[in-house]
Amino acid sequence: MRYAVMGGGKRVRALLVYASADLSGCPAPLADAMAVAIELIHAYSLVHDDLPAMDNDELRRGKPTVWKQYGEADAVLVGDALQSSAFEILAQGCALHPQCDGLSVVRLLAHASGSLGMCGGQAIDLASEGKLLALPELEQLHRMKTGALLVASVMMPVLAMRLPASQQASLDQFARAVGLAFQVADDVLDATADSATLGKTAGKDAEQGKATYVSLLGLEEAQRRAEALRVQAHEHLGHLGRVQGADGREALAALADLIVRRSH
Amino acid sequence: MRYAVMGGGKRVRALLVYASADLSGCPAPLADAMAVAIELIHAYSLVHDDLPAMDNDELRRGKPTVWKQYGEADAVLVGDALQSSAFEILAQGCALHPQCDGLSVVRLLAHASGSLGMCGGQAIDLASEGKLLALPELEQLHRMKTGALLVASVMMPVLAMRLPASQQASLDQFARAVGLAFQVADDVLDATADSATLGKTAGKDAEQGKATYVSLLGLEEAQRRAEALRVQAHEHLGHLGRVQGADGREALAALADLIVRRSH
Repeated sequence: MRYAVMGGGKRVRALLVYASADLSGCPAPLADAMAVAIELIHAYSLVHDDLPAMDNDELRRGKPTVWKQYGEADAVLVGDALQSSAFEILAQGCALHPQCDGLSVVRLLAHASGSLGMCGGQAIDLASEGKLLALPELEQLHRMKTGALLVASVMMPVLAMRLPASQQASLDQFARAVGLAFQVADDVLDATADSATLGKTAGKDAEQGKATYVSLLGLEEAQRRAEALRVQAHEHLGHLGRVQGADGREALAALADLIVRRSH
Repeated sequence: MRYAVMGGGKRVRALLVYASADLSGCPAPLADAMAVAIELIHAYSLVHDDLPAMDNDELRRGKPTVWKQYGEADAVLVGDALQSSAFEILAQGCALHPQCDGLSVVRLLAHASGSLGMCGGQAIDLASEGKLLALPELEQLHRMKTGALLVASVMMPVLAMRLPASQQASLDQFARAVGLAFQVADDVLDATADSATLGKTAGKDAEQGKATYVSLLGLEEAQRRAEALRVQAHEHLGHLGRVQGADGREALAALADLIVRRSH
């Protein structure tokens, strides 16, 4: 489990949690629990996605994947236990702050992880192999597969601190734009960067004949779209009005920029 | 997911939840959520345990296992999404009753499912193949692999309703005895019953050279031990004193009997 979690990665989800927690006035120990929980869910999903029966990947971040290092059976169990651990740590962190709405946070993370979120998106992705998806289908797939967890990262502190409905709506819109931008940027990188910079095999999508934003829209239009989503994300932050932590708002804006303009 | 969950089974864990909920005065909608959650965790664990990389089972309850029916990738994802679903439904049920200690319940189920509970027990079980475990090691394995979820079934309503510490201790002891008795009885059945009655391949443990209570203690001593644990379980219930639901206590006693004396 340590091997799967401590191997680095961008920690984008944790960064979104911390920025949103600052904006929402969420206590630091609770933000820690949320950040850990979402990274554990993300880590478990990578362990399972890498399995031979799934994406059959042998390398991740330059190291053997968990199944390659420890065997398939342990990789299944490591992923399973990481998911349990996420909910255990989250519930523990929430219990420290009874004034926070901990059960809504647990529910949000579970929903984002499950059949109507990340797992469902991965299932659709696997079922779509060899089919050329149209743009709305591709978008739905990514909203579930990667978007749901990114939205949960932003919304966990917001729900915990019971922000007013109008602010919840703006932050939800912000997170949805960022979640989609993340995937469009990923597809652009897959088509333009080299494997060394990416830390994974570049051009894999095209090779597997998978529909991507680049294959459906062309490279330039995909880049335009990522940029448009980035601008949208900023606009939603602009609609927030007064918030508890102005630094948090700036951090969210900076993360939206980073996600679209990153090089890996 | 439906195929994995609705295929029958004894629903022992749900029955334990309902009996304990009655004893604890736990509201019915919350008991429902707990019963569903624990059965979803149990169901997901079977889906993953059946995988080729794990126990490589093709039949469960007379039907093809999930991976055999839908493929390995979907079996991994079905299990993952069932686990998420368990926590989603549990958190949702707990939120209906803010006076209950919902976060402790979530934490308990997560802990019982994870690396120090069910998943950890399965990992030890896989790592022990071909080794002859001694009795204390075998007991630790089963306390984690099957005991932890059975204990959680009994203790979720107890924690939710914040029963007095002395009653919590008695019910915890009851559940531990029942949890162990369950496995001893399982080993006895594996050695004595035929496959048709069991609904799974009988004699598999002996064939795989696995340590069981029967292989370590002999059949008669294993049977004596299961009976002794049943009597212990009754004694712990006798120490409870006054409880909210006396029917619940009787139901727990009857379940202890059923678990030891079942024929499959």
